[in-house]
Amino acid sequence: MRPYFPGIPDEKFKRGQIPMTKQEIRLMVLAKAQIGPKDIIIDIGAGTGSLSVEAALQATGGQVFAIEREQEGIDLIAANAVQFGVGNLSVIHGSAPAALSGLPPVDVILVGGSGGYLTEIIQYADPLLKTGGRMVITAVTVETLHKALTIVDSMPEYQCEASGLQVTRVRRVAAHHMFQALNPVYIISCSKGAQHDR
Amino acid sequence: MRPYFPGIPDEKFKRGQIPMTKQEIRLMVLAKAQIGPKDIIIDIGAGTGSLSVEAALQATGGQVFAIEREQEGIDLIAANAVQFGVGNLSVIHGSAPAALSGLPPVDVILVGGSGGYLTEIIQYADPLLKTGGRMVITAVTVETLHKALTIVDSMPEYQCEASGLQVTRVRRVAAHHMFQALNPVYIISCSKGAQHDR
Amino acid sequence: MRPYFPGIPDEKFKRGQIPMTKQEIRLMVLAKAQIGPKDIIIDIGAGTGSLSVEAALQATGGQVFAIEREQEGIDLIAANAVQFGVGNLSVIHGSAPAALSGLPPVDVILVGGSGGYLTEIIQYADPLLKTGGRMVITAVTVETLHKALTIVDSMPEYQCEASGLQVTRVRRVAAHHMFQALNPVYIISCSKGAQHDR
Amino acid sequence: MRPYFPGIPDEKFKRGQIPMTKQEIRLMVLAKAQIGPKDIIIDIGAGTGSLSVEAALQATGGQVFAIEREQEGIDLIAANAVQFGVGNLSVIHGSAPAALSGLPPVDVILVGGSGGYLTEIIQYADPLLKTGGRMVITAVTVETLHKALTIVDSMPEYQCEASGLQVTRVRRVAAHHMFQALNPVYIISCSKGAQHDR
Repeated sequence: MRPYFPGIPDEKFKRGQIPMTKQEIRLMVLAKAQIGPKDIIIDIGAGTGSLSVEAALQATGGQVFAIEREQEGIDLIAANAVQFGVGNLSVIHGSAPAALSGLPPVDVILVGGSGGYLTEIIQYADPLLKTGGRMVITAVTVETLHKALTIVDSMPEYQCEASGLQVTRVRRVAAHHMFQALNPVYIISCSKGAQHDR
Repeated sequence: MRPYFPGIPDEKFKRGQIPMTKQEIRLMVLAKAQIGPKDIIIDIGAGTGSLSVEAALQATGGQVFAIEREQEGIDLIAANAVQFGVGNLSVIHGSAPAALSGLPPVDVILVGGSGGYLTEIIQYADPLLKTGGRMVITAVTVETLHKALTIVDSMPEYQCEASGLQVTRVRRVAAHHMFQALNPVYIISCSKGAQHDR
Repeated sequence: MRPYFPGIPDEKFKRGQIPMTKQEIRLMVLAKAQIGPKDIIIDIGAGTGSLSVEAALQATGGQVFAIEREQEGIDLIAANAVQFGVGNLSVIHGSAPAALSGLPPVDVILVGGSGGYLTEIIQYADPLLKTGGRMVITAVTVETLHKALTIVDSMPEYQCEASGLQVTRVRRVAAHHMFQALNPVYIISCSKGAQHDR
Repeated sequence: MRPYFPGIPDEKFKRGQIPMTKQEIRLMVLAKAQIGPKDIIIDIGAGTGSLSVEAALQATGGQVFAIEREQEGIDLIAANAVQFGVGNLSVIHGSAPAALSGLPPVDVILVGGSGGYLTEIIQYADPLLKTGGRMVITAVTVETLHKALTIVDSMPEYQCEASGLQVTRVRRVAAHHMFQALNPVYIISCSKGAQHDR
């Protein structure tokens, strides 16, 4: 069996009706998260679990906690964990920040969906994040982008950067290659404490 | 009744299953085409006729020839002409370059669809375009973009420029505004002869 | 002399060190502004005056008030008005909203620069805008985009839409055509009152 | 010392006047290249060596051959190899395809610069690429994008996909966050033979 490489093609995941983080975005989030082999990771708003699964495949000696509030998402995450033979992924059915209670200190926090509670989520999540840890927030709305930037700017312990990613797939259609845009996603990535070098 | 302004909203056109040039792209194409009130215009690959209709509304004392090979397109162009009270739009059912035969000298040539015959179309269309006239080509594939640039570069009489337009609609969804990408379109716009200043 | 068409090439304007609204963005702003021949227009944060000049060329029987706080901008606006033979453009040296005082009712308000006072500017500008008038705000920062959307959403009299424009110029370099991105600009365009149809 | 993670920040590299593959693009190219710890890699048109260095840091038990025709590039690649303590990177001063002669079979071929010889380069490089190997081509011009797609489509042994990446950096300027576009880059990534799963 060939080894795992980041950036599993989208169509390999079970997806249902839930929006999925596309491959290129996943790659960028994973790269910004700098996941080590023993890292503990929380994925908030895990959706289909595509990001949780890839995080789990990178932290083979660590653990991923995937938080998701929709039952359909919970089922997909579990199914995708089986699909990729991932044993270090715990699914938590609930909403952040409440669902964060009881979790151990972690190395990485991924925030893919905040249900409008981004401020509260970061407030609760921050004490869980170890010094040197990384927080990576994805935003697909103006409000989330704006709020994420405002919050992280107010936290002097965090060094952050942000960029938007507009992917254009070039799809072969007969003898032509069409430009097909994916929706842009903004990625706000932070490291906690001066020790960590992004 | 209020006057016409360029950039009729997409939803005002009858569309069917035919891909339509989106408002922002139409605006840019119309701007590059610099349509005067008495201009004669050919729209090749007219599709739903959205561009033809706007061209006709600008050239109120001129004439638009909309060439389209699909029957569904022909019907939509006619319906949209009625919808916007346009009387100076002639629909030509056929494929360019053949469908160009018999047309008079023109001020503007719009090429929205070329069916793979861009070289031939430009070759036949060039003698129809008056000195000072404008040719505006839209490209949604790598091949059309490449071919259009190659052809216009080889025509010393034409001064051309090209740019791609990636529009992101910002749509309100509940209390948020989502980024939603439209597919990018490249616009190659040329003027014929040194007299014309783009 | 050939007539005016919207979208004057960037290099025709005197520019100095002041950032200029690029041609493609100007075209889109002008299209959303739907300027009629007798319209009265306020351009807030007029910069080099490129937008003011084009607005004045469209409202030949109307008037443009260009508000700008930097002396360099004031000089450039005046120079560009001369350059394009524009007589219906009044330059106001000052900052909005204060500089708005004493202005008559207007058909169009363009907000290109707000110096951090977007809320106040819109508050003061709103009573000046006639029913059926258009307000077009351009945003190049997350904060302006977010604030503009928040404000216009809170004004039930206004019907608004927003989109981002990412232009990629395709520049010939030797035998190749390079993709060169311009910075994205968001355009929030509103009409006041149900009578006006965007 | 903290471990290596893909996506070294741009400013950590010595750059000179040579254009450098930006971090986000590097990340995507590296992800598509799926570099294993013992892989042999050729980087054609290595420029500053940023990609070569990251490839070498991933193939710690393998080898990277960086081909570059400009002396300034050669010096920068060597300096960057020292900077990141990379010992498995061989610099080859010359132009592909000629500079490819004598190289062993490889797992990965990266084509960042082709000097107009993309067809010849791929023709010579193909026999060097092992079955299951990956070829990743970056294109910043219409011509390279078009040629790369045309060539790889004609090679039935290769399974390829292509996408464009438009990165918008969100830079803090005083109290605002400005959108700043990087030039778009297209990435054409292929695997050779059916065994390999991208």
